[in-house]
Amino acid sequence: MELINEMIKKIKRPDYTLEKEVQDRLDNLTKPKASLGRLEEIAKKLVIITGNLRPKLKDKVIFTMAADHGVVEEGVSAFPKEVTSQMVYNFLRGGAGINVLAKHVGARVVVVDMGVAVDLKKDPKLIIKKIGYGTKNMTKGPAMSKKQAISSIEVGIEVFEEEYKKGIDIVGIGDMGIGNTTPSAAIGSVITGKSVEEITGRGTGIDDIRLSKKIEVIKRAIEINSPLANDGLDVLAKVGGFEIGGLAGVILAAAARRIPIVIDGFITTASALIAYKIRPEVKEFMFSSHCSEEKGHRFMLSYLGLRPLLDLDMRLGEGTGAALAMNIIEASIKILNEMATFESAGVSKG
Amino acid sequence: MELINEMIKKIKRPDYTLEKEVQDRLDNLTKPKASLGRLEEIAKKLVIITGNLRPKLKDKVIFTMAADHGVVEEGVSAFPKEVTSQMVYNFLRGGAGINVLAKHVGARVVVVDMGVAVDLKKDPKLIIKKIGYGTKNMTKGPAMSKKQAISSIEVGIEVFEEEYKKGIDIVGIGDMGIGNTTPSAAIGSVITGKSVEEITGRGTGIDDIRLSKKIEVIKRAIEINSPLANDGLDVLAKVGGFEIGGLAGVILAAAARRIPIVIDGFITTASALIAYKIRPEVKEFMFSSHCSEEKGHRFMLSYLGLRPLLDLDMRLGEGTGAALAMNIIEASIKILNEMATFESAGVSKG
Repeated sequence: MELINEMIKKIKRPDYTLEKEVQDRLDNLTKPKASLGRLEEIAKKLVIITGNLRPKLKDKVIFTMAADHGVVEEGVSAFPKEVTSQMVYNFLRGGAGINVLAKHVGARVVVVDMGVAVDLKKDPKLIIKKIGYGTKNMTKGPAMSKKQAISSIEVGIEVFEEEYKKGIDIVGIGDMGIGNTTPSAAIGSVITGKSVEEITGRGTGIDDIRLSKKIEVIKRAIEINSPLANDGLDVLAKVGGFEIGGLAGVILAAAARRIPIVIDGFITTASALIAYKIRPEVKEFMFSSHCSEEKGHRFMLSYLGLRPLLDLDMRLGEGTGAALAMNIIEASIKILNEMATFESAGVSKG
Repeated sequence: MELINEMIKKIKRPDYTLEKEVQDRLDNLTKPKASLGRLEEIAKKLVIITGNLRPKLKDKVIFTMAADHGVVEEGVSAFPKEVTSQMVYNFLRGGAGINVLAKHVGARVVVVDMGVAVDLKKDPKLIIKKIGYGTKNMTKGPAMSKKQAISSIEVGIEVFEEEYKKGIDIVGIGDMGIGNTTPSAAIGSVITGKSVEEITGRGTGIDDIRLSKKIEVIKRAIEINSPLANDGLDVLAKVGGFEIGGLAGVILAAAARRIPIVIDGFITTASALIAYKIRPEVKEFMFSSHCSEEKGHRFMLSYLGLRPLLDLDMRLGEGTGAALAMNIIEASIKILNEMATFESAGVSKG
């Protein structure tokens, strides 16, 4: 808990004193005022987050964390459990969606085993930080112990810190874990107060019958565990997952270092809710990359006061939306840093 | 008119016979079916447009065409008319929004003077194809002659063809012309049938008084000229602009060569409407990059059956939205070409 407390202490509300200066520059670029819309908002937010009037986004890193979920035995997913480990190998070989999109935007992917149910083969590209061999079935008691919840977050912090030494200017978060829309929906419902029906979606693509089953499973898990909505650690332990905890740790560590965080879809937003409950200031360091097709995502984002940058009907996870959005975020910084001003270009003002 | 007729003959409905094959590949990539949402739709559309199962998007070209507008003397813009030429120089020096964003996505910008009101200094990077020194004031008669309308489109075709020799895999279109949201709104209203009030927005940022004036000016121009909604050339001549005609020409030429076209904001969508009225099949070759803040844009896109990829509150024009969207479009092709299949990666299917 010591490491989490250290982060809580380090995370301050970002510094808004630079806001006027960056706004002045944006208004002096050769374009009608505010005509680059959200690109200008993003640039401003990046300046405020980093405290740097000319932020750079050279090192882009996406943490894709994987784990298994005991609740899968209730039949909540369209895919078999072994896909979690198979997909980790796919990440390591570079064949998954996140590999292609991260490469496209010039980001590196850090793959972490936070609790896959089997022992994975060693690989120089794989960080093995197993908290357990998958969580327990949350319909029968807490998904993990309080100690494991703390460990999962602290491991996330450590993994971030290790990677930070190699350079990180912006961080994206991604997930892999068959069944993990189930704990994420539970977290979303408990923290936002929305009903399980409003929050729960079809995940990898389940039919109506399995969706009803999933909703019932989530309700049962919440009922049996009674997670405390305002206690992020309690929610994580009772209805969370190891990758969800790890990513919450990445968020806390990044915010402590004033590094902008790009969240991805439904699962990473559940992580963001956990981190938010631990330290509400983290939300000011976050960008929402996209609005997932997963039903409850919209409510969870709006609870955090975040407006997604993209709306492309995606629901893959892994960090794919975060990768795509990094390109937009980088564009905003180039606008700020590279465009001519009215004066320098000799263009008349309106 | 010969060149336009030649394009009309060349443009065929794209070939949907490859649809099943590309869908099969997309469904075999290591992700839940359709979970990359619109990225998959884009990839499919690109295959159908190009007739190539593995399309490439190496050469990305944005045509930014500039012209002046006689209607500016009615006081419809927040910026003085000289800004058109000043911004052309800014494009040539690389300081404008489009330069920064095109460079960001790896596209080259082709700057064309279609009818700026002054003689521009020669520059190896500037293509001078003046149809006239700005259009006439459309509240007093047609903006241009029928002959000029034809020329503007044919020049657009020629400029595209010239550039095509250097390689074009995807084309974006952009505009510059103080006052050009006024003819674009007139075109939008005439062609979609929406009222002038519904279509007309604040352009570079005019206040309520000037907006009422602008609406009144557009109504007057439509009334005095009675453009024929189903005759693209007639609409262009009566209430259009030289850059709008040139960009319609680029669209026709690109569609004739089965090159995907990325439209930008309000003005380029007016060009798309003109091209659509000349040859309706062109819309199947188009992508809408973003939904502009300019009020009527949404209606014009929906008239063309296009759903924008981005919604970032932008309203700059120049091709800036098209540039940003090219990155998303390119991502879709990389997904198609680079992701592993379930079989190749040894991942179990759902």
